[in-house]
Amino acid sequence: MITLLTDFGVADYFVPAVKGIILSINPEVQLIDITHEIVAHDVESAAFTLGACYRDFPAGTIHLAVVDPGVGSARRAIVVEAGDYLFVGPDNGIFSFVYAREPAVRVFEITQEKLFRHPVSATFHGRDVFAPVAAHLSKEGKAMKAESLGAEIHDYIKIEIAAPQRLSQGRIKGRLIQVDRFGNCTTNFTERELHPDQARRFAMMTVAGRKITQFGSHFAEAERKEELFAYPGSAGYWEIGLWCNSAADALEARRGMEVTLEPRWI
Amino acid sequence: MITLLTDFGVADYFVPAVKGIILSINPEVQLIDITHEIVAHDVESAAFTLGACYRDFPAGTIHLAVVDPGVGSARRAIVVEAGDYLFVGPDNGIFSFVYAREPAVRVFEITQEKLFRHPVSATFHGRDVFAPVAAHLSKEGKAMKAESLGAEIHDYIKIEIAAPQRLSQGRIKGRLIQVDRFGNCTTNFTERELHPDQARRFAMMTVAGRKITQFGSHFAEAERKEELFAYPGSAGYWEIGLWCNSAADALEARRGMEVTLEPRWI
Amino acid sequence: MITLLTDFGVADYFVPAVKGIILSINPEVQLIDITHEIVAHDVESAAFTLGACYRDFPAGTIHLAVVDPGVGSARRAIVVEAGDYLFVGPDNGIFSFVYAREPAVRVFEITQEKLFRHPVSATFHGRDVFAPVAAHLSKEGKAMKAESLGAEIHDYIKIEIAAPQRLSQGRIKGRLIQVDRFGNCTTNFTERELHPDQARRFAMMTVAGRKITQFGSHFAEAERKEELFAYPGSAGYWEIGLWCNSAADALEARRGMEVTLEPRWI
Repeated sequence: MITLLTDFGVADYFVPAVKGIILSINPEVQLIDITHEIVAHDVESAAFTLGACYRDFPAGTIHLAVVDPGVGSARRAIVVEAGDYLFVGPDNGIFSFVYAREPAVRVFEITQEKLFRHPVSATFHGRDVFAPVAAHLSKEGKAMKAESLGAEIHDYIKIEIAAPQRLSQGRIKGRLIQVDRFGNCTTNFTERELHPDQARRFAMMTVAGRKITQFGSHFAEAERKEELFAYPGSAGYWEIGLWCNSAADALEARRGMEVTLEPRWI
Repeated sequence: MITLLTDFGVADYFVPAVKGIILSINPEVQLIDITHEIVAHDVESAAFTLGACYRDFPAGTIHLAVVDPGVGSARRAIVVEAGDYLFVGPDNGIFSFVYAREPAVRVFEITQEKLFRHPVSATFHGRDVFAPVAAHLSKEGKAMKAESLGAEIHDYIKIEIAAPQRLSQGRIKGRLIQVDRFGNCTTNFTERELHPDQARRFAMMTVAGRKITQFGSHFAEAERKEELFAYPGSAGYWEIGLWCNSAADALEARRGMEVTLEPRWI
Repeated sequence: MITLLTDFGVADYFVPAVKGIILSINPEVQLIDITHEIVAHDVESAAFTLGACYRDFPAGTIHLAVVDPGVGSARRAIVVEAGDYLFVGPDNGIFSFVYAREPAVRVFEITQEKLFRHPVSATFHGRDVFAPVAAHLSKEGKAMKAESLGAEIHDYIKIEIAAPQRLSQGRIKGRLIQVDRFGNCTTNFTERELHPDQARRFAMMTVAGRKITQFGSHFAEAERKEELFAYPGSAGYWEIGLWCNSAADALEARRGMEVTLEPRWI
């Protein structure tokens, strides 16, 4: 099984070209789209999205992720072995959430050019480099060790996924790391910063000058439905939502915005 | 085979998480998207869309439908046996077109929690409740009776799919139940209200103050191409269209808008 | 394997209805989306998109393409045998890039109505005509010759894919044939009009009054990152791009716009 995550959109010939190449090499493989709607060149959003669902797939799944503003340049192409999965893509930090989460990670630079589709387009490594490599990995399975693609490297690129920062008086500074289609805003606060059992009585979040004092476990539980509230989201982070409405619109929120968490008695 | 219909969009990690969970339980199952572009929380539109195509799938298909504004609340999770199909989703009326169309329907509340993905997120039952239930049903087939998921219920929720209403002097009041991407407007008039053989000479529709007197069987047949015309649509309802153009834009139409049908000699 | 290319969008019941019908006839077939986001009724864009990727699929793939403003009219339904592929769709020029590229093409009008889904909707031949024909072809394989669907025809429709036109003084007039989601603009100039080895020193393109003198092989290579540059794109045509930005926005470009290519010493 191969999953695909790109910023190619679904209107052009890019995604089917990638799929066609994979299926030409391994017609038996099952292809599952993660998404192709990553904002163009937004490696950080791609990294979050992959991190939020890669573990839901069966062991052995190959995750192909191509958000690649540096295509054609000297940036390396890599295969990552981590947990029960293989990952194929550019070395630009797109696998940063995987690196952060998996205890054992090995990264190999892809240099075995005989696997590529030739001639290799300088602008479409998704089709000509990453797709055939993923297809061969899916076909040959354990017989094809990631090592056979190229040498192991250790200086692979990790983007900073800003961890929350503890300030004085129990205050913690975080940020919004994603805004979803419902307008729910994902913070980088986890259970470590705020345990659900304590949230309801003691916590307060501030974002864009707005205070959020309503905490719960799900939308229907919000007592004051017209007010913003925070809840533990399904990706493992606290989120800010609004009952049947867009919290992002209410907050004019965008990814990267600062959020603070503090005890309510201050 | 499992189909998926949600309002999750395709930009976030929601849809691939659902698919990953299903494939982790049953790697052999074939997944087909109905759509993930239902307007957020629009249960009625989801019900129409499912109703318009569920019967085109092979007997035995499991239809998983999750448009679920009440996620996390007390709304029930259900499995529906109807016709040749099984349906899995929230009990909020999303299967109303199925209930209306199938002569024999049985509905079971899902209470067998050992099937769920744990811990169950309070905001993402698509992944943690509905996906694993659908996957187990697809895997165990007839060996797993819907009954084994929980008790049969009879007070399941049906949303009102307003049937046209007969007025005096042969006039009938209906409404627009869908607007598609081409701008074609689907009414709730069927052959029962207006037989195609009689339409051309005798009928008139009025919507938003505009009279439609041109009736036909398809776009190319419209004689006055610049004018709105009505034709029997592919979902079994009369539609209003405009040759190579958007009738919805011309009418400033939106779902729910009133349409009247009347004999033209009035 | 069957690919699907339509202008149906993915919000309505159209695409799943087509897939359901195919799978009801041949549950074993693998379905791959090319795209459903062709602008409504834009046969030319559909033709380009199919042309840019159909050869990336395994030999024997059936390409089903339905952008069909003439649905219900007298336009013919056809099956095309070309290269290693079969194509199914309306006879409106949608396969023009295939005709232009494949040395041997045979086209058959589909008249074998017993294969259709009945009753045949006058507005949805994608579901009722093309889907069942493609499904039967995929199921019966070589046993079902395209001939058995109907008679061979020779007056099938080709849309003009304007070839560049040579003017005086070495100037060549072309046009933009596609704009992709990144804002890259595809011209109809190929290696025949401008060889990459000569481009860098000698060539100049003009589009919408803007001169492009920076040529390269990929984005990262552009020396003046803030300036437009031209490079050989992955579909075999010269493209105009802008580093991490939209050339189409910078040029206010749209498909069909004129582009000229000339030696730089003029």
